[in-house]
Amino acid sequence: MAKRKTIYLDNAGTTPMDTRVERVVLKHMRESWGNASSVHDVGRQARGVIDDSRKRVARVLGVKSEEMIFTGSGTESDNLAIFGVARAYKTRQNFSKKNLGGLRGHIVTTRIEHPAVLRACQYLEKKEGFKITYIGVDKNGIVNPADIAKALRSDTILVSIMYANNEIGTVQPIVEISKAIKNFRQNLKTKTHNLKHFFHVDACQAAGALNLNVNQLGVDLMTLNGSKIYGPKGTGCLYVRRGVELVPQIVGGSQERGLRAGTENPALIAGFAKALELADENKKKESTRLIELRDYMIGQILKTIPGSHLNGDAVRRLPNNINISFENIDGEMLMLALDQGGIQVSTGSACTSTSTEPSHALKALGLSDELAKGNIRITLGRQTMKKDIDYVLKTLVSLVKKLRK
Amino acid sequence: MAKRKTIYLDNAGTTPMDTRVERVVLKHMRESWGNASSVHDVGRQARGVIDDSRKRVARVLGVKSEEMIFTGSGTESDNLAIFGVARAYKTRQNFSKKNLGGLRGHIVTTRIEHPAVLRACQYLEKKEGFKITYIGVDKNGIVNPADIAKALRSDTILVSIMYANNEIGTVQPIVEISKAIKNFRQNLKTKTHNLKHFFHVDACQAAGALNLNVNQLGVDLMTLNGSKIYGPKGTGCLYVRRGVELVPQIVGGSQERGLRAGTENPALIAGFAKALELADENKKKESTRLIELRDYMIGQILKTIPGSHLNGDAVRRLPNNINISFENIDGEMLMLALDQGGIQVSTGSACTSTSTEPSHALKALGLSDELAKGNIRITLGRQTMKKDIDYVLKTLVSLVKKLRK
Repeated sequence: MAKRKTIYLDNAGTTPMDTRVERVVLKHMRESWGNASSVHDVGRQARGVIDDSRKRVARVLGVKSEEMIFTGSGTESDNLAIFGVARAYKTRQNFSKKNLGGLRGHIVTTRIEHPAVLRACQYLEKKEGFKITYIGVDKNGIVNPADIAKALRSDTILVSIMYANNEIGTVQPIVEISKAIKNFRQNLKTKTHNLKHFFHVDACQAAGALNLNVNQLGVDLMTLNGSKIYGPKGTGCLYVRRGVELVPQIVGGSQERGLRAGTENPALIAGFAKALELADENKKKESTRLIELRDYMIGQILKTIPGSHLNGDAVRRLPNNINISFENIDGEMLMLALDQGGIQVSTGSACTSTSTEPSHALKALGLSDELAKGNIRITLGRQTMKKDIDYVLKTLVSLVKKLRK
Repeated sequence: MAKRKTIYLDNAGTTPMDTRVERVVLKHMRESWGNASSVHDVGRQARGVIDDSRKRVARVLGVKSEEMIFTGSGTESDNLAIFGVARAYKTRQNFSKKNLGGLRGHIVTTRIEHPAVLRACQYLEKKEGFKITYIGVDKNGIVNPADIAKALRSDTILVSIMYANNEIGTVQPIVEISKAIKNFRQNLKTKTHNLKHFFHVDACQAAGALNLNVNQLGVDLMTLNGSKIYGPKGTGCLYVRRGVELVPQIVGGSQERGLRAGTENPALIAGFAKALELADENKKKESTRLIELRDYMIGQILKTIPGSHLNGDAVRRLPNNINISFENIDGEMLMLALDQGGIQVSTGSACTSTSTEPSHALKALGLSDELAKGNIRITLGRQTMKKDIDYVLKTLVSLVKKLRK
């Protein structure tokens, strides 16, 4: 049986591993398998690979290598940032013993965050007494920095905003939000407690497309991971600006400055660093190429398929993201029909795909239930060519017609 | 320059990856890179690999596959078991709102556990109001089941005991401890609350050497990992008996039945399953071989090096573990001297090797400071041959002599 043609357009769900990354992973699986905490030769070889990888990642973000913490996923990094800051605050305030009146610890986030951020916030809200403000977005999916400014309180300990949305691809005004937070910080007159209003950014979808220089962005914590940038799955990191106190999420040995216990995997860490470097090096050229393909595809869909609507901002969006709602279509059915034709796209986000509820991000845009359910997400990748787009367009047009009958 | 001869005898620290495991990992890095939460073809391929791996792991433990949770390390599994049970109890008891008097939630563990267990218990003790009893061991490093029985209280929610110690290699009487717990459970007259006295076993050092059938052992939760069994680092699993409630440690997507969020790495999971199967299949033959080498080496050391002492039980110990203290020797110096000769051993445990304190496990045996510091751990592996042992013995004898001068 001939192998079926496959066009993978779910690169926001995850990416295949780049062969250059694979070579690095394989090399270090063979050469650097030691326990990096061991002080002998085999351990030092592993430690060296991790140190070198940390420098490489730090260079991409324009930070010091000791500010980078390697973790096991973007989710874990998000959790470490949110639980870490919240529980450090709790410890500092001796929260469990004294009643602090209004000063419970307050977090600002948005309604369109990834579940790794939303569920962590909900956990803190339900089980640990924190207050959370969930900011809405405009109809294009953009956060208004003024809304963040308004939400800030004297007991706000953290603002967590994703750089680019995984579903609708909208890019948030991180620099402006950072300025709003700094402005609030400076104008705070009563300094009765040592709060810093830290700013965390989930940049899992941003690497390879957007500026990752944390100083230019003005962020204090930033999440990255390997599985969306042609790197190994099971890898992530958290940038932690010097001075940000965190309580570790996983405790045991003193790996990663005591912030993430567990024997490190040097091969995966090196693979992640390589993937991040490649993504960053090719950012400009690849983004230009993808934006052209993206806009061509969006234009063709809107032109040739009646009752089709683009979700999310047309310009302030990731170069590879196309999120479309079709009137009178079940997105799930369309996705499965495309899959039968060898074309992989998604509906909702992969992380919540076992749920049948329309996506929380689409609902936050104010979409009708019909349009929220009639949605597919097409995310282009390094391997996507113009001829693939044309093939998918043709298939899409005929499937939408067929399903509407 | 000729490559220096290397004899790696730190297999309790970590093991190189078996080439048969490497083949599995590489295959699935290439073929099964999809996001297992995606419902399309590429996602289903990844999901299939994870499902199959789960069945394989479950078969080794004699359990249902839905009772196995994949994690990112042994440390994470230990944390999930301990924090998970404790926080589920807290939720059930509405702990934070009511004052429960004496019923704070009590955990029994030992003084010689891995830091992944000890630090989790200390965290619960300091920050979440739990009570912990740390049981001592006899001079051979063995836990007395009667001591566990005595420590149990009506509010005991968890007993966590490691199957085999990572430093001194002693194997604990898990079946007897399990019986003591069951006995206590049955005799509890007042059933005012729904406590189960769950039994967690950290078996990270046990796979490949000891019986892993959890029903025969009578345990409710069991930790395993890949990095000590010639599998991939960054992999672990937790057996969770049906009926044991856990609060997840990492939240976000609903992977692993909602108990461990984050995009899975099918390649590493498949590699872990393969490593566990290989370890279990070869258990009997390899243990016999290693016990012979171990006892030969111990005998030779004690016979030829005056002032040398075996730590831990001579019989109830892991087939690959040799832990020796030398009078009038600095273990660290000896370890470094051996390393210069191309022989890797450890002192203390790798996970705490950045500390200069004598190991907590050795101190729990009641060793003098001199003997605790004059300690090295030699852990044999699949690759260890008789001729390696003879070479190491010769080197060891001469180095001890030299260092004592």
